[in-house]
Formats: sequence, C-alpha cells, structure tokens
Amino acid sequence: MATLKDIAQRAGVTATTVSRVINNRGYISEGTRKKVYAAMEEMHYQPNELARAFSKQYTNTIGLIVPHISHPFFIKVISNLESSAAEKGFKLLLCNSKEQPEKEQDYLDMCISNRVAGIVLCSKYVQTREFRKMNIPVVNLERGGDDDTISVQCDNYQGGKLAAEHLIECGCKNLLHFGGVAGKDMPADRRADGFSDVCKRAGIPYRILVSDRLLYGSMHYEDFIRRALQEFPDVDGIFASSDLIASQVIQVGAQMGKRVPEDIQLIGFDDVMISTVTTPQITTIHQPVEEMTELCVEYIAKSLKNESVPQKIVLPVRLVQRGTTVLKTEI
Amino acid sequence: MATLKDIAQRAGVTATTVSRVINNRGYISEGTRKKVYAAMEEMHYQPNELARAFSKQYTNTIGLIVPHISHPFFIKVISNLESSAAEKGFKLLLCNSKEQPEKEQDYLDMCISNRVAGIVLCSKYVQTREFRKMNIPVVNLERGGDDDTISVQCDNYQGGKLAAEHLIECGCKNLLHFGGVAGKDMPADRRADGFSDVCKRAGIPYRILVSDRLLYGSMHYEDFIRRALQEFPDVDGIFASSDLIASQVIQVGAQMGKRVPEDIQLIGFDDVMISTVTTPQITTIHQPVEEMTELCVEYIAKSLKNESVPQKIVLPVRLVQRGTTVLKTEI
Repeated sequence: MATLKDIAQRAGVTATTVSRVINNRGYISEGTRKKVYAAMEEMHYQPNELARAFSKQYTNTIGLIVPHISHPFFIKVISNLESSAAEKGFKLLLCNSKEQPEKEQDYLDMCISNRVAGIVLCSKYVQTREFRKMNIPVVNLERGGDDDTISVQCDNYQGGKLAAEHLIECGCKNLLHFGGVAGKDMPADRRADGFSDVCKRAGIPYRILVSDRLLYGSMHYEDFIRRALQEFPDVDGIFASSDLIASQVIQVGAQMGKRVPEDIQLIGFDDVMISTVTTPQITTIHQPVEEMTELCVEYIAKSLKNESVPQKIVLPVRLVQRGTTVLKTEI
Repeated sequence: MATLKDIAQRAGVTATTVSRVINNRGYISEGTRKKVYAAMEEMHYQPNELARAFSKQYTNTIGLIVPHISHPFFIKVISNLESSAAEKGFKLLLCNSKEQPEKEQDYLDMCISNRVAGIVLCSKYVQTREFRKMNIPVVNLERGGDDDTISVQCDNYQGGKLAAEHLIECGCKNLLHFGGVAGKDMPADRRADGFSDVCKRAGIPYRILVSDRLLYGSMHYEDFIRRALQEFPDVDGIFASSDLIASQVIQVGAQMGKRVPEDIQLIGFDDVMISTVTTPQITTIHQPVEEMTELCVEYIAKSLKNESVPQKIVLPVRLVQRGTTVLKTEI
C-alpha cells in the first residue's frame, strides 16, 4: 500500500505537498500537481477511507441487524435497504442475529466499535439504550419502539382488517389466523387485532394461533399447519401472517385433500416473490418495503446532521388479490 | 464519544497510563488500573476498532459483490457467507452491483479504500487485477477466473449431465435447456455442456436457449418461457438453469394447459427454498452453497496469513428428486 511519503519520494516533492494536492489545499503549481498525480497513478494510490473515517469518528456504513437473513420478508428488506443506502452514499454492514440475544449483543458491540453511521434494527432483543449513549442514530423497522427510538412500520392493524374483510367478502364463515411468534410482542401482532376486530363486528367465528420461535427460525411451519387443519376441520378462510406460511398452507392442504381456494380461501402477508410462484398464486397484503427502507436511510442521514425526524411513521398497506381467494361476485 | 484524554482526566492519570491499561502494557498498579476501568465504564468507553484497523491497514470485513441481491441463489450465498464469516470473526459488507459495470467499479473502489480484508466476487464484470495490485485476497464464487484468482465453483458440468440423464430415465424424448445469460461466459454455462454431451450420446434431440441480461435482472422469464413452449410444442423434458426459472415454467405451463410432470418433466438447479413451495415441488440439482462459502472465508483467512491456497476448487453436486419428474419405474 503506497503512502503519502512513497508518493512524495516518487514525485520528488514533500509529503505536505502531496497532502495539499490530494486535499486541494494551498497553492500548488500545475507542474507539481501533474507530477503528484502521475506518481499516485504509477503507485496505485487510493485515498484511504479508513483514515478519513478515523478522523471524523464514524464511517459511511449503516449496520442492518435482522433476525433471519433467509426469511423472504428480510430478503426484501436487505435488497431494498442496500439500494436506498447506496443512493445516499452509504454502505451496508449486514448482521444476522438469528434471534440469539448473545449474538445480538456481539453485533451491537461490533457496530459501536466500528463507528457505524447508523443502525437499522429489525431484531427483537437488541437494547437501543447503548446506541443512544453513543449518539448513533437507530431506526426500528417493523420492531416495537420500547423507548424514544425512531420507528418505521407498516399499518399492520389495517392489514389484518383488510384480510378479514376480504375473506368475509369471499363468503368464508369460519376463519383462522396463523399469527406471529408467541411472547414476542412485535408490531406485526397488530395484524391479529385488526383481524379479530372485523370478525367480532361481523359475528364470524375465528381463531388466532401463534407459533413458537423454533418454527420461525426453521421457516418450516408444515407440522403446525397440519395439526391446526386437523383440529379445526371447518375452517374455510385462513389469514397467514407471511407469504411463507401461506405457501406452506397450500402444500399441506394439498397433502390433506383440502384445495385452495375451493375448500379453503387464503391470504398471506408481505407480497414477496414467493407469492407469485405457488399454484395458485397467493392473495396477500402488500408491505411498502421500498418506501420503508428509504425512510430508514433518510432518517439516519438527517439524524447525523442533527435535523429533526418523526418519532414513529406508519405506512399504508394494500390488498393484492391473486388466485388463493375468489370474491362471491366472481363465482 | 469519550477519548483517552477524557478518561485520563476523569481517572486523574495521564493519557499514556490509560493507553497502557487498555493495551495491557508496562507496569500499572492495581489501584490505577481499577480507577481507569471505572472511568471507562462511567464514560461508556468502547475500544475503537476503527483505530485498530487504521493501524493494521485493513479491517475484519469481507466485501461480497453479487450481481443481484434478490435472486434466490444469491440469497442463499449471502445467508451462508454471513454465517461462515461470523464464525471466523469477519463481518460482511454487502455490495449489489446490479450487473452495471460502473456500479461494480464504484464498489471495487469502495472495498479498496475501506481496506477490506478480502473480497468474495460473484459478479461478472469486476476486474480483479486492481485487487491483486493492492494485495487484497479475492475469491471468485461461481464466476470465471479470468486470471490467477482463486475460484470456488460447483461441478456445473456434472449438474447438467445428471439433469439430462434423469430426464432420459424418466422417459423424455425431446429435451430443452433454459440456459445461462447470453454472452456472459460463466461457470454455470458448463451445465449446458454436460446436458448436451449426454443428449448427443443418447441420440436424444435437444435444444439450448439462452436468455438476455434484462431477463436475468428482472427475474421474470415468463414471456421467454411462453414463446419457447409455443415454438417447440413437442418438448417433454426441461432442464432450467435455476429453480427460479423452473418455478416459472410450472406457472406458464399451467396457463398453457401443459401439466408438470404429466406433459412436461422438469428439473431446476440450486436447491433453494423456492423449490419446495411450488406445486409440484421441484426436482433439482443441489449446489453445496454452505461448503462453498465456508471455503471462500477459509481461503481469505489463509491468504491474509500468507498460507498457500488452491487455485481452483470444484465441489460435487447431486440430484434431489421431488414432484416435477417421475421415473419410468415409478409409473
């Protein structure tokens, strides 16, 4: 790695002169400038971001902490956040906490000691207090704000409401919701609230089933779904809290001789790629992930400039009808 | 952010003493050590990785440059590489080149100027010469080694061979391969070679279709597949070069009244999650992505210690039979 001193030697000038050329500071003759640039090129000199970061005490890196890299929802978050970050000149440091509190703490320490510019947090157990002490901006994405940290969410309550209303419009009489993870208390739990409220008002019987963390980690809900369909054979409408779960409802249903949408109508959540490769394709609630990640980056950039940002932002969702539901008017 | 000086002031000692305590250097009385630790704790002092990286001139970060973050194969690469890297104490800097040469050059410059410890490269157009000049270890993952850069691949030729042999065992008489991207010359192109060689030897008619970069970028091959099925109505066996393409063959086939596997038998490639949520589930060639990413990290770690590493590693693949193919003996 060539240093300022090496370049100075090659160009036959002092290191101070090289530094002036690089930083465009003070008077430098055109001849000297050319000599320095030629030496930099010959020696493959690259300006050192590390040194710059060291002097300003933070890097242009955003740390993203997700609980689960391979989950279709987080794939969409990662992909969109990388784009949003790159647009504003930030890089992405990707951290997979796997929902293990000790791993989350490791990543937290790593982000702090690497002086990230900001953190986008999707993982439950990380304490944000530490970051606030260090003045590192943190944005919670679809994660409960347990304190005064910025929070970006979709309208989960509205999503649950839309799902229940749509299943009822499709003529379902007996509803089931495969909900979030037991004992986690995440914004996504509001989907169950919106769902329940509509069912209660309409006088439609419904059940809410929550899964455990193990299932969430494995991404395999098949046994859980099978037991539910056996226990509640009269269910004719299911709202799954992810397209992933919905895709497995189709698989398990087929094994049990229950056809979607003929025997069971089905709505997922997220609107990720998986919802368009199943047979039939999945009716779902669209989360505006692109807008959500753009806001995360914008709020980090603003926080770094000490500009004010909202405390909590809730973005609207919408229903996307595909093949797993059929409106009564369409029959 | 507390500095050494702040801590020294709080503890009532010199900055040199604080530095000695932190670096465990020279004689320090137990009383002084305790005072310094107490001050560090009170002031939330965190050892600065940035400063350490600055002194050793590289960070503990691996740069991963992929052409396409949301493609199911790269999702599996990202997830597995993050795990492999974390196990060896590396972090992951995620770069999405989107196959745009100017973006690849930007990321290359960024990785160099941020002094990454090493690069895992899955993207076609990046020139590795620059990295070698800077002594940054580069591992090509499923990407052609145009020079003497380390290359980790799966046995793509064998994968194509297994696919053709299996389709023939299933009784197919007229084969089609949806191959790689035109004009890219990637290791994945060897799949077509293995496929062709088997078909030629068996005297089975076959066709190879390559798609363009635009389709690869959009991940939507539906129109391309539809035109192919219209143009070649006698095709009864398809080998798709990704599970993503295979999933769309099922979708388009259903729209055209061609059932999988009754009318068309189908094999994908990769063995990613998508292959288990389609109806029927996709018979595929399993890529050992976990082993591949472990080797990438191992080779970077060895290169940093100037230990020798192999030039090219090719790992075996295997056929995973699911519902899109039926052996003649099973009928």
